[in-house]
Amino acid sequence: MGPGDLATPQDLKLAYLLGSAIAENNWVLLTGGRKAGVMDAASRGAKAKNGLVVGILPNNNTSEISEAVDIPIFTDLGNARNNINVLSSNIIIACGMGLGTASEIALALKSRKPVILINPAELTRQFFASLTTENLYFAPTVEAAISLVKEILARNTFRSA
Amino acid sequence: MGPGDLATPQDLKLAYLLGSAIAENNWVLLTGGRKAGVMDAASRGAKAKNGLVVGILPNNNTSEISEAVDIPIFTDLGNARNNINVLSSNIIIACGMGLGTASEIALALKSRKPVILINPAELTRQFFASLTTENLYFAPTVEAAISLVKEILARNTFRSA
Amino acid sequence: MGPGDLATPQDLKLAYLLGSAIAENNWVLLTGGRKAGVMDAASRGAKAKNGLVVGILPNNNTSEISEAVDIPIFTDLGNARNNINVLSSNIIIACGMGLGTASEIALALKSRKPVILINPAELTRQFFASLTTENLYFAPTVEAAISLVKEILARNTFRSA
Amino acid sequence: MGPGDLATPQDLKLAYLLGSAIAENNWVLLTGGRKAGVMDAASRGAKAKNGLVVGILPNNNTSEISEAVDIPIFTDLGNARNNINVLSSNIIIACGMGLGTASEIALALKSRKPVILINPAELTRQFFASLTTENLYFAPTVEAAISLVKEILARNTFRSA
Repeated sequence: MGPGDLATPQDLKLAYLLGSAIAENNWVLLTGGRKAGVMDAASRGAKAKNGLVVGILPNNNTSEISEAVDIPIFTDLGNARNNINVLSSNIIIACGMGLGTASEIALALKSRKPVILINPAELTRQFFASLTTENLYFAPTVEAAISLVKEILARNTFRSA
Repeated sequence: MGPGDLATPQDLKLAYLLGSAIAENNWVLLTGGRKAGVMDAASRGAKAKNGLVVGILPNNNTSEISEAVDIPIFTDLGNARNNINVLSSNIIIACGMGLGTASEIALALKSRKPVILINPAELTRQFFASLTTENLYFAPTVEAAISLVKEILARNTFRSA
Repeated sequence: MGPGDLATPQDLKLAYLLGSAIAENNWVLLTGGRKAGVMDAASRGAKAKNGLVVGILPNNNTSEISEAVDIPIFTDLGNARNNINVLSSNIIIACGMGLGTASEIALALKSRKPVILINPAELTRQFFASLTTENLYFAPTVEAAISLVKEILARNTFRSA
Repeated sequence: MGPGDLATPQDLKLAYLLGSAIAENNWVLLTGGRKAGVMDAASRGAKAKNGLVVGILPNNNTSEISEAVDIPIFTDLGNARNNINVLSSNIIIACGMGLGTASEIALALKSRKPVILINPAELTRQFFASLTTENLYFAPTVEAAISLVKEILARNTFRSA
């Protein structure tokens, strides 16, 4: 998860590396599906490593899909689709921050999903830590995030895809 | 698409064959995802032929998923998820009839999606034909349905998965 | 409930009378909220009798609201909002038929809500009667529909608004 | 908007006063509808002053409604209903903070709705201010919040209910 149209170059770089690492570990990548920002960069990173990419789109518009999405799900729910993104992910990883991303992190933590923030701003870290003491993880790098995923997976029995 | 808990043995048999045929043609199967009725039978049919199965679940309950679903999407939207099923499918095929299936067929036709009814009752056929003259197809058998899918695909350019 | 842009003059006339009768009985009218077809006619009928009108809109577009709606609810869910319409109504009454209306009737009956069809076509009547033996009522006129509502209310304890 | 089951006594006191003030100004109160926390307190405050209260419920469960809700809308969408709350409000006012409330504030600001936080923690204030420079207001008291509402209303032409 991460910003769409307002993503920074750093967000995009991290997202691409993260998508690649997810695919290299043979995990399925789920994103918001649009051809924009972190969604698109992570999807392209996964696709470059032959990963499988699911995109949960807010609209019903085939022209807005990232070309790297394999399985587009057209919800036509607008921002209400954010809750589907978090419920359908075993682990949520965020690169960058914005209003949509903040809503997804809050919904994910409310549903008791593990959330990993990659290199978050100190303010972001403190804000979410003030709202919950559980399921919230911070990783300085993509490599650290992948290590955290492996630790979380080792402690949980998720249904394998 | 088709009945869940109220599916008939004939519905289940057709759904299993249909799922198998979809996988044999290397198409992705999308169902309502639950371990019940037509959803489960079609998913098992596809899985038996190494197909890829996406399940759009109405709830957020991992214990209700068909074991043959590869990609579960947890919507937690109840019956409102029916609209996602139809928007996310290129072609909708129904085995059997019930209230949920009728709502999906109506929503699919409203969104101008091609709908194929396999061996429908005369009353079902007449009712939907009275509501639209477009995008509605009837097939006496699974084989005929697959032929119709190929004809529709030949006329349309869907985004390949 | 009833057709939007494709409503017939007869649908609109019945919807206006029905909205008026609902307001005269001090019931709250809930519609799909758009300035079109049966939604708009029923809302205007209720407003002419000082009724309270709730509109559950499919979009987030203030320019599409019926002017007779008092409480607009902007869902931005597209056709997925149809399920909210039926869950939020104690009794569903349909004037006319179309694909959206058919989806609402099917969803309402699936959720075991009482559904009254005013002067339905024989085919419509037979189709829905083939799918359920419960909660489905037919009324030749608005007056007969209002009488049915009173009978249903007398048998049920709905939460009063 | 504000916490449900985790609301503090201070949140509940502010919410009750806010609901009362909203009703005294003849505005319609829209809440999340449940008999819990800020939703319930604000609804009871409005009802004590004969206000009109709309409740957008996450479920389809009549036993969970606040008794002070006049118009219950049963979405059965779980947390996805949060987006309907913010789209259907002209102005969003939050008492207290939690994960659900944070998701609503983020979604409201994303949809460019005016958001007023009553007496927020410094961290909350800074976090949301870091995500947007528009539409975000802070009020130390209920009275100050009501003054802000009047200022915002004077600058905007909302559709009157």
